[in-house]
Amino acid sequence: MQPEAHRLDEATRLVPLGEGWHAGATHPAYANMAGPFGGVTAAALMNAVLVDPRRAADPIALTVNFCGPIADGEFEIETKLQRGGKTTQHWSMELKQKGMVCTTASAVCGARKPVWSHYPVSGPAAPPRDGLPEMTKTGRPEWTRRYSFRFAEGGLDDFPRSDGVVASARSLAYIQDLPARPLDFLSLAALSDAFFVRIMHARGTFQPMATVSLTTYFHVGADELAAIGAAPLLGEADAAIFHNGFADQNCALWTPDGRLVANGVQITWYKE
Amino acid sequence: MQPEAHRLDEATRLVPLGEGWHAGATHPAYANMAGPFGGVTAAALMNAVLVDPRRAADPIALTVNFCGPIADGEFEIETKLQRGGKTTQHWSMELKQKGMVCTTASAVCGARKPVWSHYPVSGPAAPPRDGLPEMTKTGRPEWTRRYSFRFAEGGLDDFPRSDGVVASARSLAYIQDLPARPLDFLSLAALSDAFFVRIMHARGTFQPMATVSLTTYFHVGADELAAIGAAPLLGEADAAIFHNGFADQNCALWTPDGRLVANGVQITWYKE
Repeated sequence: MQPEAHRLDEATRLVPLGEGWHAGATHPAYANMAGPFGGVTAAALMNAVLVDPRRAADPIALTVNFCGPIADGEFEIETKLQRGGKTTQHWSMELKQKGMVCTTASAVCGARKPVWSHYPVSGPAAPPRDGLPEMTKTGRPEWTRRYSFRFAEGGLDDFPRSDGVVASARSLAYIQDLPARPLDFLSLAALSDAFFVRIMHARGTFQPMATVSLTTYFHVGADELAAIGAAPLLGEADAAIFHNGFADQNCALWTPDGRLVANGVQITWYKE
Repeated sequence: MQPEAHRLDEATRLVPLGEGWHAGATHPAYANMAGPFGGVTAAALMNAVLVDPRRAADPIALTVNFCGPIADGEFEIETKLQRGGKTTQHWSMELKQKGMVCTTASAVCGARKPVWSHYPVSGPAAPPRDGLPEMTKTGRPEWTRRYSFRFAEGGLDDFPRSDGVVASARSLAYIQDLPARPLDFLSLAALSDAFFVRIMHARGTFQPMATVSLTTYFHVGADELAAIGAAPLLGEADAAIFHNGFADQNCALWTPDGRLVANGVQITWYKE
């Protein structure tokens, strides 16, 4: 019997149409309030590089610009290898629907070598995952059911609220694909956007808001990810400023034993 | 008498060749070890959007991918308005020399509105600028002479060193254009890359190293920048991981009275 594909693989599956040209489609399992969860769009764009036969190394960096809404249904991704050097390859990607650009992205692939390494920052202190409750998914968008969220700090159990209290923007949570899935660059690209927009935590209000641009750096090679397997990651997210309709956001994803696997930033928009 | 142009304006000056198409040139005043200082390249790419007559709002985000070396001399920048919505415009840029892509970039412009704002993070504590010594420029690349650096923490006076000591990757320094120049998005784009690559601080060794990709978020409007004027900024930079040839880096730029004007990340490459 064929093992059932994980829905993340279904949602990021690409059909080759030519060199640097793929077809894909949104997946109802990763639906957000309107259109797909941004993390799965980021993963699909990452996949266009991962499956490209010209790719020579693991991804190091991914930037995704959410230019406009993505309608449920088919899309195409155009991938351009902008430049390939001895150490790095630079890629640009465009996700289009009916010829209109919905998302642009860039990625860098880089050959890691066993040179001097240094890990000055320890992972955040957190209680064991087993003692933390699963976030309830009632009333939340479909994509949240594709993840286990166990918040140690800054959860969303009281969201939405209208008490006027401005809470901390920081969250600390164990996050894992549901069902569990061995970590790879697809899932890391999606996980880096699985933190909720910080205004939900700080202000607690339900209002128009969206990620505008997202940058993720990967700090592991494919071989190291394979060794980590399907472990839950400890994710930390915070924000420094909410100013006149735009807010920043940073995140970091750690293995439970304190190895940083990815970190990054995003800029988000909010309406009022 | 015509006032003399600031060298940052000279170095980022663009000559229109057509819609979304400009010519520029490297400037000896911003020369790095090989090719131009990356910050001035970022500023030139930002300028291609700033001078574009289609631009409808201030820049919010800038990502620059340093794909290959830039030779001293002329370059062209192609600018594509990927999508313009009610609130945001998305741009892609390519800097080419002799038809070859040297740098790619993306930018988001966004209309700020006087809505709910919140500033959860205070600027870092630092001693007054007046009591801090200027970094010496002897033996450093030409571009460093275009900036005042006054380090409160994590300076480079002992660089390079070969004592094997791994120091903190964190720096705290007042940075300002030299001569002083009213802040704008050009200078912020450059300043966000004016922090030295963190391996210089942590390891102290002089070795092949380069910024691979850089993302900066702007947290001020043009009107707010005009009010800040030519003030020195307090810059904070740090890194979380140096792993097998790639290291992350984050930075934040604050006004002396504690207002965050820009922050961002970069991923850097080092050889050994």
